[in-house]
Amino acid sequence: MLTFYHAPQSRSFSILWLLEELGEPYDMQLVDIRGEDGAPESYREIQPHKKVPAIVHDGVIVAERAAITLYLGDAFPGAGLAPAVGAPDRAAYLTALVYADAVLDPVIATKALGLSYQPSSVSFGSLDDAVAHLERRLAHGHAAGERFTAADTQIGTAMYYGMNLINVLPRRPAFEAYMERMLARPALQRTLAKEEELAKG
Amino acid sequence: MLTFYHAPQSRSFSILWLLEELGEPYDMQLVDIRGEDGAPESYREIQPHKKVPAIVHDGVIVAERAAITLYLGDAFPGAGLAPAVGAPDRAAYLTALVYADAVLDPVIATKALGLSYQPSSVSFGSLDDAVAHLERRLAHGHAAGERFTAADTQIGTAMYYGMNLINVLPRRPAFEAYMERMLARPALQRTLAKEEELAKG
Repeated sequence: MLTFYHAPQSRSFSILWLLEELGEPYDMQLVDIRGEDGAPESYREIQPHKKVPAIVHDGVIVAERAAITLYLGDAFPGAGLAPAVGAPDRAAYLTALVYADAVLDPVIATKALGLSYQPSSVSFGSLDDAVAHLERRLAHGHAAGERFTAADTQIGTAMYYGMNLINVLPRRPAFEAYMERMLARPALQRTLAKEEELAKG
Repeated sequence: MLTFYHAPQSRSFSILWLLEELGEPYDMQLVDIRGEDGAPESYREIQPHKKVPAIVHDGVIVAERAAITLYLGDAFPGAGLAPAVGAPDRAAYLTALVYADAVLDPVIATKALGLSYQPSSVSFGSLDDAVAHLERRLAHGHAAGERFTAADTQIGTAMYYGMNLINVLPRRPAFEAYMERMLARPALQRTLAKEEELAKG
């Protein structure tokens, strides 16, 4: 049993996409994060900041997108989206997963909000370094190397958001080419269609 | 073969601590992150933001603390610091690991820098929610439940830094009790002694 806590047009998009890639059945619970005080207080038991996404799988809660992505990739190895523990490409996979949450999201958010800081004084560093890194990284084809992994649902979501929705990321050729490859995936097309349905209410 | 890229008095403290807990041999490479332009440009091949920590293990690079912690915990299962894939307590373990990097570090850093923002507009949310969550969480004893795991090197490092070095975290009884349990660990005592040696140059 898998329950997915989601809000349309939010960071939980990446998990919706991952679930489409996995093709496993799940129950979607919509969380109203945009009310006056955010989601209902009862939801804090699932997610301590009342944010999405979160999942409950076989009775256990997983929060934080990199953790959820990693958990689901390992829970359903048949989908082939997660290099196994001990495989040499596991290292790049873990690095990319965490990078999306711990670096990319904060640098995009602080840039969008116009907050200024010394990159050396924060864990997440600078947007310029992130852009340069992604440009080198995505030239290999995907977030964690040559093949598509669950890390692409994380990095791809951040890129889509940063390039198309808030225009914080530059439209570098390597980024455009990457997004084109991602948008050719049927699972991402289904995800975007579902989001559109959900946004209509 | 394990190489650890470290700078004293930085976020790589948590990995130094973890390595002490694991007891595996490693080669430490000190990175001068505090020079005029930060670490040498050649280091960017290892860590794209020229930050610490990073590791190279059997020829593969792992960056981002949650990723390194997870990687090492799984690579050395004999130490018993990481619930295995499929174990019910793996979920809380992954959640705590990513939470330290993706939420706790940014909320502490933005607070320390005096940056103000709407918690709903950033991925990491508010310091108040983080404090309340940690208070509930650590009442169970450790970052991921009753027993010590590699997630405690991450959460414990953030708590130590936030409570003792920059005074951004309040000294709640649950926090003091947790830090006392952590500081009773010989591996953390050895880590603090090593840091002191390194800081002396």
